[in-house]
Amino acid sequence: VLLEEQVPQIYGFLPGLEMAGVYGGDGGKYDIAVALDCGDIERLGSRKPVFEKAAVTVNIDHHTTNTGFAMLDYVDTGCAAAGEIIYRLFGLMGIDPGKDAAICLYTAITSDTGGFRYSNTTSATHIIASELLKKGIDVADISRRIFDTVSPGKVRLMGEAVNSLELLENGRIALMTVSCEAMRRSGAADEDTDGIINIARNISGVEAAAMLREMENGDIKVNLRSNSYVDVSAVASKYSGGGHIKAAGFTVRGGDLGKVREMLLEDLRGML
Amino acid sequence: VLLEEQVPQIYGFLPGLEMAGVYGGDGGKYDIAVALDCGDIERLGSRKPVFEKAAVTVNIDHHTTNTGFAMLDYVDTGCAAAGEIIYRLFGLMGIDPGKDAAICLYTAITSDTGGFRYSNTTSATHIIASELLKKGIDVADISRRIFDTVSPGKVRLMGEAVNSLELLENGRIALMTVSCEAMRRSGAADEDTDGIINIARNISGVEAAAMLREMENGDIKVNLRSNSYVDVSAVASKYSGGGHIKAAGFTVRGGDLGKVREMLLEDLRGML
Repeated sequence: VLLEEQVPQIYGFLPGLEMAGVYGGDGGKYDIAVALDCGDIERLGSRKPVFEKAAVTVNIDHHTTNTGFAMLDYVDTGCAAAGEIIYRLFGLMGIDPGKDAAICLYTAITSDTGGFRYSNTTSATHIIASELLKKGIDVADISRRIFDTVSPGKVRLMGEAVNSLELLENGRIALMTVSCEAMRRSGAADEDTDGIINIARNISGVEAAAMLREMENGDIKVNLRSNSYVDVSAVASKYSGGGHIKAAGFTVRGGDLGKVREMLLEDLRGML
Repeated sequence: VLLEEQVPQIYGFLPGLEMAGVYGGDGGKYDIAVALDCGDIERLGSRKPVFEKAAVTVNIDHHTTNTGFAMLDYVDTGCAAAGEIIYRLFGLMGIDPGKDAAICLYTAITSDTGGFRYSNTTSATHIIASELLKKGIDVADISRRIFDTVSPGKVRLMGEAVNSLELLENGRIALMTVSCEAMRRSGAADEDTDGIINIARNISGVEAAAMLREMENGDIKVNLRSNSYVDVSAVASKYSGGGHIKAAGFTVRGGDLGKVREMLLEDLRGML
């Protein structure tokens, strides 16, 4: 299994990782190349030439945007995870997944559905989970590793973010501001900022949430979330950002935290 | 449906709540009384006399400790949630649950399994979830309401707890200390302290986690968690507390935060 990047540490428990490695550019020509969970061929990055040179190419995916780039495309956009499709292929091929494969497939499915919580979770997702559990996998252990393991830096960053929390407009707007110094104090890595905005979004009564983060180069990165009716993508696009109605973001080059905060607050107030 | 206490706010979205109310002591005599999710009759509290006076009593539960206190006991300890048992009873009675019942049953099951994450989750749990999803329930909405809604006070308490975080013994012990003032500053209610200890437990590398909380009456309440091998119930029982191997607690009457911290640290260090 040729990967573009190292397997994230939290997935280090998966059986079979000895078969996976970061692609180092062997330039080899293979009989069959299978692209997994890739919407388009560009997602293969440095592995693109290996795929293109193969005698047979296969594309197994669930993204609605899949471009059908292989000789054989098996794309099912009704599946919550590529893991669901693989499970079905096992069935079609008459292969009974053992415990190790079950651990991997369950991990793929539970992580892509946020633990069966996202709207992509279907009745079929649960049927497959039910079958995988029959293999005797340790659901509590897998769930803890995937969902409940946080780095010390991320916990400290959560603290910094909460310390900066402002609840405005009768608690309908939640703002968090993370300065460069706060980021340094926390010892958090850049990836540790993932999901911190949800602390603000999840507060009862909050409709719009924002996290402003001062970057080392002086830019201000703004993350926006809404819960029901505010279209945060409209705010983001005003500042050349983008996203979806309930999740968007933008960056202000060389901005001032206080000024960006004022500007943004005015926009959000206007949308309540 | 006679309840002992008000339905918690986060469950306020459940259909059929108009049929439920806090028991006000009507003293009535009923043909049938059904106890749900109660391990023993004492759990019925003020409703115990109503139950005992009924012509027929039924006990539907999944606790391993259930005492079988009714005329008809339907206890299945293999079920993750009483909601699973009710779903099966629907089947036995030939009743097809509609969407409203499906929302309630799904809520019961997902909350009792921590969103299909606890070790009580079985293959059958997922089969039932699969059937309930066919009723067109909004899984993302239910999950968000149950798992992702936090009070402003609780978020501030998380901040206070994280601010006090100490990582000791090469990050194997995580300590959080919440003083009375910190509790007051956060504006958190007593119930908001639930689960805060997990912030410490979930930090990668942590084996033993403790939260010390100074109560208004001067007592120090200590929550303990471990991840693998430390038996925190042994520590707790030393101070007349109790619990399980990986989750325990104790209270020191009129203690001093600093002294309890020292005492506890010595105990935990001895167990690493």
